Amino acid sequence: MNNHSTQKKAIVVGAGLVGSLWAVFLARRGYQVEIYERRSDMRTAGYTGGRSINLAMSERGWKAVEKAGIREKIEKVAIPMPGRMMHSASGELTFQPYGKAGEAIYSVSRGGLNLELLNIAGEFPNVQFFFDHRCADVDLEHPRITFEDLKTNAFKTVDAPLIFAADGAFSAVRYAIQKTDRFNYTQFYLEHGYKELSIPPGPDGSHRLDPSALHIWPRGNFMLIALPNADGSFTCTLFLPFEGEVSFEKLTDNAAVTAFFQRYFSDALAQMPTLLEDFNTNPTSSLITVKCAPWQWQNRILLIGDAAHAIVPFYGQGMNAGFEDCTILDAMHDDLGGDWSKIIPQFAQQRKADGDAIAELAQRNFIEMRDLVADPKFLLRKKIAAHLHERHPDFLPVYSMVTFSNTPYHVALREEDEQNRLFGQILGLENIEQAWTGDAVEQVFNRWKQGGK
Amino acid sequence: MNNHSTQKKAIVVGAGLVGSLWAVFLARRGYQVEIYERRSDMRTAGYTGGRSINLAMSERGWKAVEKAGIREKIEKVAIPMPGRMMHSASGELTFQPYGKAGEAIYSVSRGGLNLELLNIAGEFPNVQFFFDHRCADVDLEHPRITFEDLKTNAFKTVDAPLIFAADGAFSAVRYAIQKTDRFNYTQFYLEHGYKELSIPPGPDGSHRLDPSALHIWPRGNFMLIALPNADGSFTCTLFLPFEGEVSFEKLTDNAAVTAFFQRYFSDALAQMPTLLEDFNTNPTSSLITVKCAPWQWQNRILLIGDAAHAIVPFYGQGMNAGFEDCTILDAMHDDLGGDWSKIIPQFAQQRKADGDAIAELAQRNFIEMRDLVADPKFLLRKKIAAHLHERHPDFLPVYSMVTFSNTPYHVALREEDEQNRLFGQILGLENIEQAWTGDAVEQVFNRWKQGGK
Repeated sequence: MNNHSTQKKAIVVGAGLVGSLWAVFLARRGYQVEIYERRSDMRTAGYTGGRSINLAMSERGWKAVEKAGIREKIEKVAIPMPGRMMHSASGELTFQPYGKAGEAIYSVSRGGLNLELLNIAGEFPNVQFFFDHRCADVDLEHPRITFEDLKTNAFKTVDAPLIFAADGAFSAVRYAIQKTDRFNYTQFYLEHGYKELSIPPGPDGSHRLDPSALHIWPRGNFMLIALPNADGSFTCTLFLPFEGEVSFEKLTDNAAVTAFFQRYFSDALAQMPTLLEDFNTNPTSSLITVKCAPWQWQNRILLIGDAAHAIVPFYGQGMNAGFEDCTILDAMHDDLGGDWSKIIPQFAQQRKADGDAIAELAQRNFIEMRDLVADPKFLLRKKIAAHLHERHPDFLPVYSMVTFSNTPYHVALREEDEQNRLFGQILGLENIEQAWTGDAVEQVFNRWKQGGK
Repeated sequence: MNNHSTQKKAIVVGAGLVGSLWAVFLARRGYQVEIYERRSDMRTAGYTGGRSINLAMSERGWKAVEKAGIREKIEKVAIPMPGRMMHSASGELTFQPYGKAGEAIYSVSRGGLNLELLNIAGEFPNVQFFFDHRCADVDLEHPRITFEDLKTNAFKTVDAPLIFAADGAFSAVRYAIQKTDRFNYTQFYLEHGYKELSIPPGPDGSHRLDPSALHIWPRGNFMLIALPNADGSFTCTLFLPFEGEVSFEKLTDNAAVTAFFQRYFSDALAQMPTLLEDFNTNPTSSLITVKCAPWQWQNRILLIGDAAHAIVPFYGQGMNAGFEDCTILDAMHDDLGGDWSKIIPQFAQQRKADGDAIAELAQRNFIEMRDLVADPKFLLRKKIAAHLHERHPDFLPVYSMVTFSNTPYHVALREEDEQNRLFGQILGLENIEQAWTGDAVEQVFNRWKQGGK
């Protein structure tokens, strides 16, 4: 095993959010970075990504972009969303703050963020981009990768002692590793798909809904959400089963789409003049979760971001988790003296539990968003949790732990299981609807905290 | 969608056990069958398979080979194993029958069985073999498959309106389907590996151990097993973790191997004159479980056998499950008038629960074999189960249901969960060690049977 840190050369596969951010981290440390991307250079060709066009940036994401030196740039176009605005079937609005006063998640444009990261990375003389390059073959033994230049159809083989695969949920590098012995792998699709829609700016250019919230229309087994954009529009996403009684397969023509929105999202429909055009133009996409192990190949290839842990979007943590990969790797680089033969196995081993945990939390949050946010018991639980947090500041709601802290995800998941146990007891208390600030709650809490936990 | 039954042409990928048996079923119905296999023709080249060299044939397997018309041929070389012979650490032997008197599982040579199936299939003029043909590419849209002739390196593309992928746990056809939208897929490796070893015939050519049993040396986290062969030898398999305190990675030289066998399997060691040669020559192989869904692609491609549901070998059901796929498909062909656009989705949908169930049962049985068979509580449970079965003939031990019946696996798994509940109650009865034939057991059983179930 060579000491790769002395060679100071690294290949990054994928110039999406995580790949381009990680290239910046590597470049700052003086690595010669070659970054290969299947798509064209969005700095000249515009954004052609296939994924949802805005993201919710939270603490883990901010920490990473700050380390990369671009926090200010992103902040300028990020829109704070301090809470959820729930739209009931009858059009009533309920606001639920995500955290304490001053805490918010931020709506950020995926394309804009990616562009910013590419610009920053491009400023380093030791970063070389290869766009329109498809990963055609991975020879794990060397290792080396063959890329096809999609503009010339020429093939080029690159020796790569150190490879970071940030090539997303459908990672070509991971497909190669999948066929090696003892690689555990799971891809799992939800029965729900999603379709992006939009609420354009109002006639005066302003937002048609309150822009300081993530809007949700929870309808049990499906939901609509909307995130504000800086241009006065909202990006909406409809999450709906592919098949079944109420499903995408039933929305076969304009009349069916309109009737569906009329019935379930009438207040949104009133703000969606381009609904039918959007619905017919935009694809219905699937929602994949990917888990695998190990995230490495022989201390020479490391899977990061979605390539290692693709998750569903319902906790707003996909990009945040990928960015946190970069922060953690960067810290390990310091701790382990830049020795990749130590960093790679340690990262792969230690971070795996966090990847699994955020995948689980994201799936659970889908249930919460589409279903529970409209449930009085759930709202009561939120109220009691906030109350307990006020009285016991170190009692942190799990949502806050995930969103507003850098606590490892696997700790947050464990805490969620514990808190579910606690609230099972609290919500079982007599007359809890009235007595939710009372002594009995406090007693249950203290018992739970002292040892039951 | 054409009606494929009128075209009467079918491609089978893989001429292993399931592929060659399924070719026989198709040939009998008059299909033009082309069967492609990566390996050489074992009828001329000899057996070069990579998997364990003997199998335990049970009811589902027999039913299929009977339908294929080769039951008698197989029976001649099959060795009945009516029970397990457990070898304790101190060399004591305990025999545990698998079922009732007359019931047995049968040790059968994988190579011999495969050869027999190829011979039978080869007798049909409407079966065409293509050995040394590697599946190089699957074009799902047509669908058509490109094979590489490994002898000439020539490529050949075959239009294939109806494809049966019986190409095993590492199915090339399935890898192609894996990349399509909404295909769920899991590959999971045990932490244990296995190595084949042998006990040669004794000096007079006879078996060195009782040949009418499957021998087990259960040692908690690992075990050795031995199955009799017709030539007087036994094929042994050592199941051991790859890593850890007692593991393959620790058995680095002859001294370590000998000491390990001396310590844990001394009575077996005495019968293994070729242990070191075997150990050093034979590979250490991994144990994969594969689950996926759907097992089909567009009513044109169907995954069968290990390609759809590869399982660990601890229930002796891998081949039996694959053979049962053939029996069930054949029956559906009758029920649905040979209309593959109905058969394929119905099979894929209905049989999936059984594939998942036998995967689960096989993993659980590993725990039982390596660990529980030496546990007094477990032996007591077996005794009580046999006793209850005698008094209530329709109360069938799950092992019998899986091994000696054709009850769907998913029913057997549900029954196992129910029976675990029953025996949890029975083994909790006071003084159960003495009172296991008593009234209290009968009462618990009756309550369980009547409604608790």
